[in-house]
Amino acid sequence: MKNFKYVIAALMYFAFAKASQAQTLKSPNGDFEMQFDLSQEGTPQYQLTFNGKTVIAQSSLGFDLKNDEKSLKNDFEATGFDNSTFDETWEPVWGEESKVRNHYNEMLVSLNQKATDRKMNLRFRLFDDGLGFRYEFPKQEFSYFVIEEELTQFTMTGDHKAFWIAGDFDTQEYDYTTSKLSEIRKLHAGAIGDNASQTPISPDGVQTALMMKTADGLYINLHEAALIDYSAMHLKLGEDNRTFQSWLTPDNNGDKGYMQSPLSTPWRTIIVGDEATDILASRMTYNLNEPSKIEDTSWIKPTKYIGVWWEMITGRSSWDYTDEIPAIQLGKTDYTELKPNGTHAANTDHVKEYIDFAALHGFDGVLVEGWNQGWEDWFGHSKDYVFDFVTPYPDFDVEGIHEYAKSKGVKMIMHHETSGSTRNYERHLDTAFQFMNKYDYDAVKTGYVGNVLPRGEHHYSQWINNHYQYVVEKAADYEIMINAHEAVRPTGIARTWPNMIGNESARGTEFQAFGGSKPNHTTILPFTRLIGGPMDYTPGIFEMDISKVNPENNSHGNFTLANQLGLYVTMYSPLQMAADLPENYNRFLDAFQFIKDVPVDWEISKYLEAEPGEYITIARKDKNSSSWFVGNSNGTTPRTSQMSLDFLEKGKKYMATIYADAKNAHYKDNPQAYKISTKKVTSKSKLDVFTAPGGGFGISIVEIQ
Amino acid sequence: MKNFKYVIAALMYFAFAKASQAQTLKSPNGDFEMQFDLSQEGTPQYQLTFNGKTVIAQSSLGFDLKNDEKSLKNDFEATGFDNSTFDETWEPVWGEESKVRNHYNEMLVSLNQKATDRKMNLRFRLFDDGLGFRYEFPKQEFSYFVIEEELTQFTMTGDHKAFWIAGDFDTQEYDYTTSKLSEIRKLHAGAIGDNASQTPISPDGVQTALMMKTADGLYINLHEAALIDYSAMHLKLGEDNRTFQSWLTPDNNGDKGYMQSPLSTPWRTIIVGDEATDILASRMTYNLNEPSKIEDTSWIKPTKYIGVWWEMITGRSSWDYTDEIPAIQLGKTDYTELKPNGTHAANTDHVKEYIDFAALHGFDGVLVEGWNQGWEDWFGHSKDYVFDFVTPYPDFDVEGIHEYAKSKGVKMIMHHETSGSTRNYERHLDTAFQFMNKYDYDAVKTGYVGNVLPRGEHHYSQWINNHYQYVVEKAADYEIMINAHEAVRPTGIARTWPNMIGNESARGTEFQAFGGSKPNHTTILPFTRLIGGPMDYTPGIFEMDISKVNPENNSHGNFTLANQLGLYVTMYSPLQMAADLPENYNRFLDAFQFIKDVPVDWEISKYLEAEPGEYITIARKDKNSSSWFVGNSNGTTPRTSQMSLDFLEKGKKYMATIYADAKNAHYKDNPQAYKISTKKVTSKSKLDVFTAPGGGFGISIVEIQ
Repeated sequence: MKNFKYVIAALMYFAFAKASQAQTLKSPNGDFEMQFDLSQEGTPQYQLTFNGKTVIAQSSLGFDLKNDEKSLKNDFEATGFDNSTFDETWEPVWGEESKVRNHYNEMLVSLNQKATDRKMNLRFRLFDDGLGFRYEFPKQEFSYFVIEEELTQFTMTGDHKAFWIAGDFDTQEYDYTTSKLSEIRKLHAGAIGDNASQTPISPDGVQTALMMKTADGLYINLHEAALIDYSAMHLKLGEDNRTFQSWLTPDNNGDKGYMQSPLSTPWRTIIVGDEATDILASRMTYNLNEPSKIEDTSWIKPTKYIGVWWEMITGRSSWDYTDEIPAIQLGKTDYTELKPNGTHAANTDHVKEYIDFAALHGFDGVLVEGWNQGWEDWFGHSKDYVFDFVTPYPDFDVEGIHEYAKSKGVKMIMHHETSGSTRNYERHLDTAFQFMNKYDYDAVKTGYVGNVLPRGEHHYSQWINNHYQYVVEKAADYEIMINAHEAVRPTGIARTWPNMIGNESARGTEFQAFGGSKPNHTTILPFTRLIGGPMDYTPGIFEMDISKVNPENNSHGNFTLANQLGLYVTMYSPLQMAADLPENYNRFLDAFQFIKDVPVDWEISKYLEAEPGEYITIARKDKNSSSWFVGNSNGTTPRTSQMSLDFLEKGKKYMATIYADAKNAHYKDNPQAYKISTKKVTSKSKLDVFTAPGGGFGISIVEIQ
Repeated sequence: MKNFKYVIAALMYFAFAKASQAQTLKSPNGDFEMQFDLSQEGTPQYQLTFNGKTVIAQSSLGFDLKNDEKSLKNDFEATGFDNSTFDETWEPVWGEESKVRNHYNEMLVSLNQKATDRKMNLRFRLFDDGLGFRYEFPKQEFSYFVIEEELTQFTMTGDHKAFWIAGDFDTQEYDYTTSKLSEIRKLHAGAIGDNASQTPISPDGVQTALMMKTADGLYINLHEAALIDYSAMHLKLGEDNRTFQSWLTPDNNGDKGYMQSPLSTPWRTIIVGDEATDILASRMTYNLNEPSKIEDTSWIKPTKYIGVWWEMITGRSSWDYTDEIPAIQLGKTDYTELKPNGTHAANTDHVKEYIDFAALHGFDGVLVEGWNQGWEDWFGHSKDYVFDFVTPYPDFDVEGIHEYAKSKGVKMIMHHETSGSTRNYERHLDTAFQFMNKYDYDAVKTGYVGNVLPRGEHHYSQWINNHYQYVVEKAADYEIMINAHEAVRPTGIARTWPNMIGNESARGTEFQAFGGSKPNHTTILPFTRLIGGPMDYTPGIFEMDISKVNPENNSHGNFTLANQLGLYVTMYSPLQMAADLPENYNRFLDAFQFIKDVPVDWEISKYLEAEPGEYITIARKDKNSSSWFVGNSNGTTPRTSQMSLDFLEKGKKYMATIYADAKNAHYKDNPQAYKISTKKVTSKSKLDVFTAPGGGFGISIVEIQ
């Protein structure tokens, strides 16, 4: 009987091996073709073509496992191919459009490692805008394993132009470098700036989302989707300057992932298009995530806010209350006995000024940083019990500010800096969220500045990614929206957990006050960082000469004022800050009007023109009115955007207000030169708008009734 | 002005240096003398004598700091000596006696490291039973530092006999070895048994409390007190076989402690006596802890209990519910679809049998292990989300059992195995404790089997010790008593947090079902493990032939039945289990009577005779009656205890019931041979009671009204 079974199995195997170890999958529109195969050694492989052009050449898949010589690299046979198709349209709680189509053809490849009988499946989903695939481990005796490295390859076909930041296990806050793949190694050291926590991975490692452009004009974007309970993926460029291989963030012991079947890894994504705008229009990353797990989402609200923040970032004010002590011990240090330093911004009177400004100009909320005790030694000391998230400084009246804001129709926005002390934050999470519920805060900006605790872990390791997710889910229990700074880059999880309304996870506007970012920075971010989800970029800086805010800070913001307006459209986020000081807005109230008018939730988005590193122009229709808004961010070359307004509803008349760079504007020496003009337009209109180096524009298009 | 100041300072320094760099301190009764000094290099030193005999020879103090060449080793000057005396009597919530005297002379040595201006103080407290000292760092600019190693020395004066277990960062569950100090290295490898988590530290490392006896009959005990937010101390024996140096438990990165001034380290303790019983009678460890931080302690109740436990330990029953799956995922695995394995002990009917037995015999509580989902893959997999502490198996009716127990006047005792997954436990702690409150559980046995998470941390590192303390304090908020197994050895913290009513932290009775412990094990534990606090040793095993409980288990318990009775007195604990199966107690109901009668809280304790490794006899007076109980645990040599009952109240008459080994009893081949006799006694009576190898006895002495 035993022998008989063996014969049958062997026969099946040979028949199968001959017939069907290679399979192809096409996208719904037929433009993409993905081929799966097994190498002679039984290593899974795939390749991807787009309109007949190879995008990903033969690339292998698998894992090195810890203390497991066999690992999951070869000796596989395919035991089944299940093909299916899927087409749905779902409605996000917030987003760039009110309806999202999720349409793909799928192939599930069932693999068996012959010598070990381990099952590893590969699920490929081919959309009209690219490929997503992941590893799946069904329930089996092979339950527990530890990943030494994921061996997913992405083999490029040429020396593409890439828009990259250096791989790092602890920060994503680097300026982008634009270079050929073959130039990455030599430019790598220069691509690493200073950060409060950083662990560069090697001279050939880059981060995702990685944006590339081929010599023949194809746009390729590599990233991941649904990064949950797994470590974040970096890409390591091979010696051939063509082949990227996944490089997971290690834990403190160098291990990359503790796994238990049944499980699915995050998706690996390859978005491809003939036009740069195809990349911006892709919804693949969200589509590869699960539908919302929050049933009642009525409490999740896109928000425009100001904050007691830029004055600390520029160094004019301080987060901390006193300069009298080198270190504090929460619950033991009595602040009322200490001398205030006189620069503490989060004091009741000053916060009320911000509330007044918010109320006057119709902002939804006011963020206040530095309101709670502990900022005197808040990072850099590997301090465990660094904040308790509920105890205010003596000059911050929680109750009074709550009442005052309420009377003005403004929401206070909470701030939880954790200093990377994740256990401490988790210990206080319920209390902190209960405190928020009590005082009517419905959103919190979290922060993870400095090295994370447990010590030796990394910002993007499985252990810490699990923490961020824990906070998001716990926040949902309390109906709280999360905007996490210094956390792992988003991967579309906001579809599943739409209370994650923002993330930083890249070099934000704050770096303009720390020495500056490259002038074309915001023409790249939508192709990289924003692929995974919205960014709390905090635009709206009207005073680029930072010394005018703080004489001791000689930084200069590398953008024009009109550029800042355009970002409210080009840098999609349901959470948008007007980051500058009220005093600076008061100097330019005509331009400020655009920030007041621009919505934070959209029905339709049209990606009019784009070239990473050069320019981006996007038109979006307000979700709650017939108005449209157009935004542009420009790189270093002056140019004129030529737009057809054919996206407007036919037969309707609109008034366009154009907030543009003046002809002599320049991010470096004339950034505040802008021009506001109005023009009646229809769907037949065309508009030419000039943009200066580091410039941009914002246009509001309001229906004339 | 600057120069003038300097001159003054210099003059003061020289005057001071000559006059007072060495100081002595005497104990209240004058028996002890401690001398503090600074070496020529400015290294702090101390020595200790007892009745003129040197106990600790010149020993140095200090720290190696991480990335700090200067560290805290030398270059110190003494800038002040503050002497004081203290005498109080406090009343513990529970204990070996109802009043504890805390009487010491203190010397606070203020030190300044000249080149760095760092302040490090040493606080010495000299009691009539020994010395405690700790390091203190006052508030200063030198706020943050990382300990590479603590350099506290304990220099012995000879090749003492030691009762030791191998140093290990993850387990204390070793059998004791008795040897000379000079023999430790060669016996070390053989002293290490198997454990689910173990990290032996080196061939010359031992754990505390370390018990020693000198050639001239002095008893010396080294341990620590108030181990809070610090890593547990091991002792490393120097090449000279005389000098122990502290060896702290490292974190995952090899660091020993992250510190912030102001701070105090745990106390280092040296208990000394002419008699072994002096060590048992010492309250120094408790006295060096802070008074209770729990104001209302009325809910803390000494408890005698039985449990659904020994049948799993012996392998007769199982914690897990099914054998059908290799691994489970909480919330996803549906147990109702899985086939029960038929050996799951924590099922409602069976638990009710235990409740009936507890009610019949007057026990306070019933512990049930394996009641909650997750035991199928509970340890050994580095599993993060291993238990949720609130979801029962399908055959365990939480509500029904709660009601049934209540109707019988019995408390259910909760069990939280964490599998060392500390983050997961903390995440569920509030919910788990709320669940306990709801179902009227007021005590929980926690467990930390297997390697701890975060991965790479150790059971006794600062990070994990902080976790145990967090649980104790959180439990106090919910009025819950904690009995932590596999946690760090206690250090008298129960004075401050008297809801910590038990700990394992040593080789418990369970090892008798895992192959056996040495027959004299319980004659050593009171000198070592119990110095820091009570142990949930789980005595009361009446059936030593484990194969009679489970035919597949050939273990043998190395003790007599009478010995097990004696342990209820000799192994002090406010939490005492009768660990055997009801069916075994039913076979020996006359002996079982002693377990039913013996109290778990005491007014007075008299340490009648003791020799570590040989025998211990203790008499204790019930806190709630006039009754006395005497217990004995004997080593391998048969002997007769000769007791004067002069501790009884003069003029009163008592009936003594003596549960003793029969003459032919022997732990190996005749362990159940016991003899029960009664005798009228008074304070003038003397009793001779025979004890067999591995034997012992229990005596109840009840006043005749």
